[in-house]
Amino acid sequence: MNVFVIGIGLIGGSFVKDIKAKMPEAKIFGIDANPEHLEEALALGLIEYKATYSDLDKADFVIVSIPVNATVKELPKILDIVHDDCVVCDAGSTKELICRALANHPKRRNFLACHPIAGTEFSGPSAAINGLYQGKTNIICEVEKTAFKLQEKALEVFQSLGMRIRYMNPKAHDKHIAYVSHLSHISSFMLGKTVIEKEKNERDIFDMAGSGFESTVRLAKSSPAMWTPIFEQNKENVIDTLNEYIQNLTDFRELLLADDFEGIYKEMNNTNKIKSILKGIPLNKK
Amino acid sequence: MNVFVIGIGLIGGSFVKDIKAKMPEAKIFGIDANPEHLEEALALGLIEYKATYSDLDKADFVIVSIPVNATVKELPKILDIVHDDCVVCDAGSTKELICRALANHPKRRNFLACHPIAGTEFSGPSAAINGLYQGKTNIICEVEKTAFKLQEKALEVFQSLGMRIRYMNPKAHDKHIAYVSHLSHISSFMLGKTVIEKEKNERDIFDMAGSGFESTVRLAKSSPAMWTPIFEQNKENVIDTLNEYIQNLTDFRELLLADDFEGIYKEMNNTNKIKSILKGIPLNKK
Repeated sequence: MNVFVIGIGLIGGSFVKDIKAKMPEAKIFGIDANPEHLEEALALGLIEYKATYSDLDKADFVIVSIPVNATVKELPKILDIVHDDCVVCDAGSTKELICRALANHPKRRNFLACHPIAGTEFSGPSAAINGLYQGKTNIICEVEKTAFKLQEKALEVFQSLGMRIRYMNPKAHDKHIAYVSHLSHISSFMLGKTVIEKEKNERDIFDMAGSGFESTVRLAKSSPAMWTPIFEQNKENVIDTLNEYIQNLTDFRELLLADDFEGIYKEMNNTNKIKSILKGIPLNKK
Repeated sequence: MNVFVIGIGLIGGSFVKDIKAKMPEAKIFGIDANPEHLEEALALGLIEYKATYSDLDKADFVIVSIPVNATVKELPKILDIVHDDCVVCDAGSTKELICRALANHPKRRNFLACHPIAGTEFSGPSAAINGLYQGKTNIICEVEKTAFKLQEKALEVFQSLGMRIRYMNPKAHDKHIAYVSHLSHISSFMLGKTVIEKEKNERDIFDMAGSGFESTVRLAKSSPAMWTPIFEQNKENVIDTLNEYIQNLTDFRELLLADDFEGIYKEMNNTNKIKSILKGIPLNKK
């Protein structure tokens, strides 16, 4: 099987790392707009061959792991080239615009819209790790629009990587993911900004910050190039989550101003149930 | 050396766990308002003897690790009982009110105001872990008000646990810690609240939440009994941090509404410097 990874960073790199481990017979080809990343991926052994779009007619399985704005532009071109038995999967954190962009593509049946819920705050080929997808959820949208035998081919790969599959429509995906992923990134980036702005002397942060702070701002290390287009494509849902988050913070501030510490206790106590909700979420290596 | 731990949970329990490991000759006595916690601490081997305030005259080293509102009430009583060569340390996340409450106590020189920057989101005796304080910062306030030989005694213990010492005045401590610790807890609790409110069906959260969300809401598992009095004692500083955080989130929302994605990229890119700031912060086990 010829596996092509387009965009060889954390997501694509970790993906082919595991594919090669589980399916040694697979040949791994890499395509990347950044020639240095391609060289690095080759040096790291993530890919076996450097390739270009003109080689895509040899592809049996394509994983597209590039920023979502580039995904919308590139997927139609990629589908134009691949043969009829090739399945093309994306890995974007938004699904509605991507699915809409391909709705009428003659090769729509070769595309499987995917969002593997996995990652770390790091990026680039050197961020690729083994087992990133083990036990993680892969959300597949509009599965009925993909040729059945190509669904099967993709599921076989995902299952070999240990992924749980969940089917969803693009609209529901984008709404839910805004809450459990996109909002977390904004809250983390703005927390980091607030502290950096205040603490002119970074030494203070280093000395006083503990693991709690580090955990809460971890996502503020994420790649702006990856995240800006996600916020752009999911703008409406993200604004809804921000409105509710800002309102909850404002209400909490009101309780403080009113010295209603019983109310503050209740707020925190009610939210403690997140413990049971989160139980069982597989954590990524960091 | 007779070591008394008053409040035998995550902080006090981890503290005496390490003391016993580094100083096997130390005798560990436990006092706790909750008899079940005391029994549990004994069963877990965190303490060797159950004790009461009437035994405190035997104490050479006392660590007070109870909610900060209780600390303000109990410290004066504890100091009344201990002998002249006993050093009493607290571990509170606020320092100004505690130092003020003891300013005129006849035994003020027996007290060392401490804030070990260490912890996890868990609580109770069973949350106590080995090596929690290794490489962590212990902030000491008003050190000059503590008898010199008692400072030395306490530093010897802290250093044997691998802690870095940093001296600060209570006002600066409470202001800085509001940014790097107290605000993180509020941002995390309100993020958890926002998602719980939205996702009536918790199954969706479980399936779609990844390690990024888990990391960002981790602190929402923290104990309301511990945190409510912290927010009460540090109310003014916490409100300042909340005002700035809410403003930054509101500005980010404005950029989204204005489709200023270049501005959004810049915001995230500037905050990426948190990477270098955080480098080297020792993470607690979870």
